[in-house]
Amino acid sequence: MNVVGDRAAKPGSVHLVGIGPGAPDLLTVRAVRVIQSADTLFVPRSERSDESLARRAIAPYVSHQEVIEHVYPMTPDQKRADASWGAVAEQVLGRYERGLRVAQVTLGDPLIYSTSYYLFSALRRLLPPEAIHIVPGVSAFQAAGARVQRMLTIQQDRLLLMPATDLEAVAAAFERCETLVLYKAGRVLEPLRTLLAKRGLLERSAAVLYAEQEGREVLVEDWSRSSLPAGYMTTVIVSVGRRPWA
Amino acid sequence: MNVVGDRAAKPGSVHLVGIGPGAPDLLTVRAVRVIQSADTLFVPRSERSDESLARRAIAPYVSHQEVIEHVYPMTPDQKRADASWGAVAEQVLGRYERGLRVAQVTLGDPLIYSTSYYLFSALRRLLPPEAIHIVPGVSAFQAAGARVQRMLTIQQDRLLLMPATDLEAVAAAFERCETLVLYKAGRVLEPLRTLLAKRGLLERSAAVLYAEQEGREVLVEDWSRSSLPAGYMTTVIVSVGRRPWA
Repeated sequence: MNVVGDRAAKPGSVHLVGIGPGAPDLLTVRAVRVIQSADTLFVPRSERSDESLARRAIAPYVSHQEVIEHVYPMTPDQKRADASWGAVAEQVLGRYERGLRVAQVTLGDPLIYSTSYYLFSALRRLLPPEAIHIVPGVSAFQAAGARVQRMLTIQQDRLLLMPATDLEAVAAAFERCETLVLYKAGRVLEPLRTLLAKRGLLERSAAVLYAEQEGREVLVEDWSRSSLPAGYMTTVIVSVGRRPWA
Repeated sequence: MNVVGDRAAKPGSVHLVGIGPGAPDLLTVRAVRVIQSADTLFVPRSERSDESLARRAIAPYVSHQEVIEHVYPMTPDQKRADASWGAVAEQVLGRYERGLRVAQVTLGDPLIYSTSYYLFSALRRLLPPEAIHIVPGVSAFQAAGARVQRMLTIQQDRLLLMPATDLEAVAAAFERCETLVLYKAGRVLEPLRTLLAKRGLLERSAAVLYAEQEGREVLVEDWSRSSLPAGYMTTVIVSVGRRPWA
């Protein structure tokens, strides 16, 4: 059988793969299988980082695949983002049309504050939906909560995830959920700490930096007892209070 | 070497393991390893169900382990829940003290609307924190979103998870997040549909029943175009609207 010819006759496939928070054993079995059977892997690297954290997480599963590191913009500039991800989408499309199996890997879950959003937005204009497959993954907040043993939500509780950057929105959120997860807290550590202390929530706040990333992880189970180093990947979990049993 | 004697000298360990939404390949590599190396597996089964969905999801990874199916109460009665889970905690403790490796498996993620909450609450009074290990898992809402290709959140967006059962709280939530995930929607399908239609959100709502559970999954990409069968494990994703780029 002519494998190359056979391949060209079949349509390719595109997979947006959540690889979890960073530990190689927190990929799902499906993510491992998709990565191992891919012809090409697109691996994101932030323009602010020397190294792709995603690449480190998948290293045990990479052997023969073509690996393309894509340096993506970190500024909230839609035009720049569209141009950057549009170019990746074109590369993906070219390989798809040649019948190849292409995977983009992304830290965490593809649906939650992920680079896959941008690639998906570009790809959905180029490909039929059935050509695209999304593999869910463990998000950073889940890994963070597990590491500090902080249960998030049961019964009638509401769980709210948001970036910590807008502190007015954070203050409003205390009234609107039982558990609050704040991303990107590293940029606003001091004012956030002050706000939490003022509301009596500091001792109900845990923080995790670089959850499940070997050699970088920092765990703070009670923010009122420990100071917190600054870091881009800082997740703060505030147990605001639990709704009573129905 | 006397394996039994050696075992008894070492402390045991307890693992609360998220196994994802139901597909055996959506367990993480770590979850598979912990399950395969466990001496005893505690597997929850709802008193309303003939079969443990969790047991089906882990079936490929079970061989020699002792498997204890725990039928748990489904009423929001704290005393009954405490009694039921307290009894499981005693069984876990007995095995831990004999140096065994014990895992409780739970669908989804242990921190999010999970049976592990109740067992953890009982165990933390009996065991030192370092004896307990939490393995995060893919939650149903992540699997649901992936199946209907619904990106949840980027940039400054807020993502709110809550049960659909209190419709007043649901109506208030529309003003407070960019994406709303509603669990347990099966009980309130008709009034929820009416509420979403009134707010112009029905065509922005996707629904998934039994995400990634073989033979049971139902996907509704746009609720304004399809009716929705009732089912206990129904997740509705409402894309309320996205915050503008900063």
